[in-house]
Amino acid sequence: MKVSELSQRSGIPVATLKYYLREGLLPPGERTASNQASYGESHLRRLRLIRILQDVGGLRLDAIHEVTRLLDEPGVETMTALGAALDAQGKRPPEREAIEASDAWIAAAREVDAFLEQVGWPTRSESTARKRLIEALLALRESTPDLPVTAFFPYVRAAGEIAQGEVAHVMGALEAGPAEAVEAVVMGTVLWEPVFTSLRRIAHEQLSRRVLRSAQPQQPRPKGQGQDTQQ
Amino acid sequence: MKVSELSQRSGIPVATLKYYLREGLLPPGERTASNQASYGESHLRRLRLIRILQDVGGLRLDAIHEVTRLLDEPGVETMTALGAALDAQGKRPPEREAIEASDAWIAAAREVDAFLEQVGWPTRSESTARKRLIEALLALRESTPDLPVTAFFPYVRAAGEIAQGEVAHVMGALEAGPAEAVEAVVMGTVLWEPVFTSLRRIAHEQLSRRVLRSAQPQQPRPKGQGQDTQQ
Repeated sequence: MKVSELSQRSGIPVATLKYYLREGLLPPGERTASNQASYGESHLRRLRLIRILQDVGGLRLDAIHEVTRLLDEPGVETMTALGAALDAQGKRPPEREAIEASDAWIAAAREVDAFLEQVGWPTRSESTARKRLIEALLALRESTPDLPVTAFFPYVRAAGEIAQGEVAHVMGALEAGPAEAVEAVVMGTVLWEPVFTSLRRIAHEQLSRRVLRSAQPQQPRPKGQGQDTQQ
Repeated sequence: MKVSELSQRSGIPVATLKYYLREGLLPPGERTASNQASYGESHLRRLRLIRILQDVGGLRLDAIHEVTRLLDEPGVETMTALGAALDAQGKRPPEREAIEASDAWIAAAREVDAFLEQVGWPTRSESTARKRLIEALLALRESTPDLPVTAFFPYVRAAGEIAQGEVAHVMGALEAGPAEAVEAVVMGTVLWEPVFTSLRRIAHEQLSRRVLRSAQPQQPRPKGQGQDTQQ
């Protein structure tokens, strides 16, 4: 299809498409004439990935570029691309990484690594998710200094169960090729994350209301609201 | 304590503290002289909340202000403060909310509400978490048009289990008063979220590697790396 049709089908203005092409976020089309190129379904899929990383994942364009660059690199090992694509999400500005040199950070990192080893999920030291986990442990210990890293066990169980269903779901894309599989994993990671986090917040509110309601003196109730027997 | 000691103990520069006081993020201290005030443990706790919402929650200062304003409002109902404090997180710029008027959005909202009702978590229509959940359903259906809302069931189970432990943990703060309880719920929501999301990403990478490794032709291995018998 021509760039005008690509714009129509994706809902993205031609000017933006040209910007993506210039910056390399979108791979070039097949040249059909000196100033024309033809685009295919893979371009539509790429545009959907960009939009989802932007809208749902909240990634800036430079982080998205890091992901797409890896997907386009010829001969890049699938596993490397996958790791790097997952790392691009949740990356912090470089100045935030300075903290990683502190003694407290290094000690917490050692604990987290031993814990991940123990649960059978040893991870790459440069993994962004591992860094966020270490940060979370340090932040939690500010209010609960004696919090053991094993407090993460219920999360491992829940995350493992959830991830199993998700990976099985997206791995259908593997038939299309390893690049498509990586794309599917990244998309699945981003798309399903808000499902869990939103439901967790809803659960927090529900449970807290119940606890607060039973612990607090009853608020006066406006008349005509009927009985509320819920605890 | 004086403002200089508050700065020392919190690690926040005096200029920033004065800015917080001016803006109302930090409640005023007890006036001890015409130009002196005394600050207590509640001020230290507030500063920790601000930092965590900022660093871990990624909230902008105006969203944090929305949370603290509610915590400071005299006589505000605890449940209202809790809902509003949770809503301030994950709020989008107003232009993003326009989409909520679309037919597709309204239909998805109806499905999500019926689902939440069914699992026993009916929620406020203005809840940010509910809106994010509706958005997620719409985004997922772009690639999987026939995805039923019941695909969220495993997430409800996982989120419910996780939230139960978390709420029990922070509700210890209830003895200190309802404002402290709300503060604790918000803090817990923000602090524990990266634990789950990070572990989920680690699980994604682990599981995907296994699937990719078993589905892909073996990559040539550099010599002297030893045997890798892991599937």
